[in-house]
Amino acid sequence: MDDTRIILPESEMPQQWYNIQPDLPAPLAPPLNPGTGEPIGPEDLAPIFPMELIKQEVSMERWIDIPDDILRIYKLWRPSPLFRAYRLEEYLGTPARIYYKNESFSPAGSHKPNTAVAQAYYNKQEGVTRICTETGAGQWGSALSLAGALFDLDITVYMVRISYDQKPYRRMLMEAWGAECFPSPTDRTEAGRAILAQDPDSPGSLGIAISEAIEDAAKDPEAKYALGSVLNHVMLHQTIVGLELKKQLAMVDEKLDCIVGCVGGGSNFAGQCFPFVKDKLDGQDIDIIATEPTACPTLTQAPYRYDFGDTAELTPLLKMYTLGHSFVPPPIHAGGLRYHGNAPLLCLLVNQGVIEARAFHQNEVFDAAITFARTEGSLPAPETAHCIKGAIDEALKCKETGEEKCIVIAYSGHGHFDLAAYDAYHRGELEDYEYPEAKIQEALATLPDIE
Amino acid sequence: MDDTRIILPESEMPQQWYNIQPDLPAPLAPPLNPGTGEPIGPEDLAPIFPMELIKQEVSMERWIDIPDDILRIYKLWRPSPLFRAYRLEEYLGTPARIYYKNESFSPAGSHKPNTAVAQAYYNKQEGVTRICTETGAGQWGSALSLAGALFDLDITVYMVRISYDQKPYRRMLMEAWGAECFPSPTDRTEAGRAILAQDPDSPGSLGIAISEAIEDAAKDPEAKYALGSVLNHVMLHQTIVGLELKKQLAMVDEKLDCIVGCVGGGSNFAGQCFPFVKDKLDGQDIDIIATEPTACPTLTQAPYRYDFGDTAELTPLLKMYTLGHSFVPPPIHAGGLRYHGNAPLLCLLVNQGVIEARAFHQNEVFDAAITFARTEGSLPAPETAHCIKGAIDEALKCKETGEEKCIVIAYSGHGHFDLAAYDAYHRGELEDYEYPEAKIQEALATLPDIE
Repeated sequence: MDDTRIILPESEMPQQWYNIQPDLPAPLAPPLNPGTGEPIGPEDLAPIFPMELIKQEVSMERWIDIPDDILRIYKLWRPSPLFRAYRLEEYLGTPARIYYKNESFSPAGSHKPNTAVAQAYYNKQEGVTRICTETGAGQWGSALSLAGALFDLDITVYMVRISYDQKPYRRMLMEAWGAECFPSPTDRTEAGRAILAQDPDSPGSLGIAISEAIEDAAKDPEAKYALGSVLNHVMLHQTIVGLELKKQLAMVDEKLDCIVGCVGGGSNFAGQCFPFVKDKLDGQDIDIIATEPTACPTLTQAPYRYDFGDTAELTPLLKMYTLGHSFVPPPIHAGGLRYHGNAPLLCLLVNQGVIEARAFHQNEVFDAAITFARTEGSLPAPETAHCIKGAIDEALKCKETGEEKCIVIAYSGHGHFDLAAYDAYHRGELEDYEYPEAKIQEALATLPDIE
Repeated sequence: MDDTRIILPESEMPQQWYNIQPDLPAPLAPPLNPGTGEPIGPEDLAPIFPMELIKQEVSMERWIDIPDDILRIYKLWRPSPLFRAYRLEEYLGTPARIYYKNESFSPAGSHKPNTAVAQAYYNKQEGVTRICTETGAGQWGSALSLAGALFDLDITVYMVRISYDQKPYRRMLMEAWGAECFPSPTDRTEAGRAILAQDPDSPGSLGIAISEAIEDAAKDPEAKYALGSVLNHVMLHQTIVGLELKKQLAMVDEKLDCIVGCVGGGSNFAGQCFPFVKDKLDGQDIDIIATEPTACPTLTQAPYRYDFGDTAELTPLLKMYTLGHSFVPPPIHAGGLRYHGNAPLLCLLVNQGVIEARAFHQNEVFDAAITFARTEGSLPAPETAHCIKGAIDEALKCKETGEEKCIVIAYSGHGHFDLAAYDAYHRGELEDYEYPEAKIQEALATLPDIE
């Protein structure tokens, strides 16, 4: 039997990120200024992002060197192991070979630090002393807090109040790394005060938290803002995952047939699969499958249009699959998959038919998570459980057809802070939400009139 | 710069456990029957343990083969990585080289599954279908629940009621792996019902939970009982950690000068250091340092005597450092270090001067944990933080003397389920308990009159 974990030596860790922009099968629609409808330029972004990240956002260089200081920190958890899921295969009785590229061993428990560390580094290089951000369930906020500790930067996190109250462990984790975390809306910003004036008990929303973080950063000349997904430079930083995966598959003489990831904003999925997209465009037969919740079916049911990235209409317009920036998804437990849009790079590839999308209900997703935990041992995050469900479906198809496919699960994080969701599942309290058609149409009606 | 993580290839994973019994510097005092004062025999243990584990408990074979089925499961997380703590070293400005052998990547988050899996295997081999156990804070209960899932055994966990109520995530984790978990005292056993009759709101204790688990196992011919620390066979199973560590240090041409571990029942520490004890007895200059809380100063302040392993006086008498089996330690957050006794094997080595013991207060321990988290990234368990404190002290001594020592931290687990403790620390709510001399004398007065 081959190794259970395929370990890439530290000396083989990729030294460059892969930028997919020069290899896209169609031009990427530029972000637009919502006022003028014209493409935005670097000067529009300079108040909130460091220049090096703005350059990466539009770069057409295929390979971008990873600075040594970032590589050094990556080595605290990278290269991450690729697992062969022998026990899951046996349980399913499938002839498929199932692997999972496991990002859960970073100190923050997911892939998020891969970009948090890079963003902290470039901010530090340009003299920034404080970074502001928002967080919903807390994954991104904790990743950036970790990066702040490692680069000695102050981190200010605006955490959606309902999550702040319901998920205190994530807040405590951020504080352990020295970050400040506030329940949003706060009275620290005009945006927050305006909301509180209307509703002192507002539970908050990601849109409000974004507004607060951007305002805070824009008002302080020593501070900038950071985003944990959606943008091109975030996808770029995550490609180290897929580049490692490629080397690891080569170590065991495997050729990828199918990779399955979950998509919220798209960064884990993009990071894992973008290095394989070029192979597919060059003619290799690879199924690249994005999974999402039926409760927030962006890629499977939404139109491909320009929309705001946030509820408060502060961001540029991005061309993406969108349920409308005012869409409020049902309260499913995979908090990381409740975004109304998706990364423009990923959406383009779905639109071009390179990536296929599937949606699943909560209960079938948790069934898959439990099957995984009881065979492979590790407890996945509810987000990650979506791609496990997708991969199990593929493996069971192989059982019918006899195909010996090589299937990779893009395993994004652990479920240690999500046990309340597992508890609700065990108690039979998880709802399988239907697609709320009327509410989505209502949200879509608010979209700007640009195709 | 050398690698940050020293990775032992799967093919190099040890195939045998190391049994220290033939190499002890003095004879190990046998467990005694509390009624007769005579050494107990295998037949006394047969109702609650499988025969293979009873044999291991008294074996004088130096090397014991690890069965293939156990090795296969170990490979889900073993060999575990040895980290070089470059960033901690830099922060401290020490000439010492600091490493940490990281057991936190097992699915249960600590070293505990190393023995849980072995115990589940031997029970399964002998036809057992269900294993009963107790758990305090939940680490051991979750490790055995994981092992039950992997070997398709039913697991029944009696969890101290106050922990069951305060730490619901651990209970939910056990349930995710398919275990049954009850708040002890329960009405399922005579022992539990007797307590409830006196006090329907009893918060429970580890002693009561042990009584319930043993009674449950003894009454069901298909069930056995399992213990997560203290006993010789548990120490044996954990030696895979130290055997790996030895190979990893050799990979980077290091000679161990100092190893620091934390001690509750002793299993992580024994596992990490026993393979080095023989080197020390053979003349190598190695400091082997056990750390514990001042609130439960077993090794540093208690007498070396025969005592019961549990509060309810159900176990055989064990020769160990003991604060008295009726001693109730203050409610410190390192729940795994609140045991009144310690593993007899470890106690013998402390008594013989081979292992040195130190005690620390809670706040200095959490100071060390935060230093670690903000330099190395990972958040340690409060138990683990004790040995980090011990290692930092050693590294700072090297800074004074200029010695370039090789120091290893026996990193036993992560703190993902202990964030409430970190929160209390940040709020300044942690008490530094003084040694409650009078209460300990009271508890010691209840010891059986055997030296």
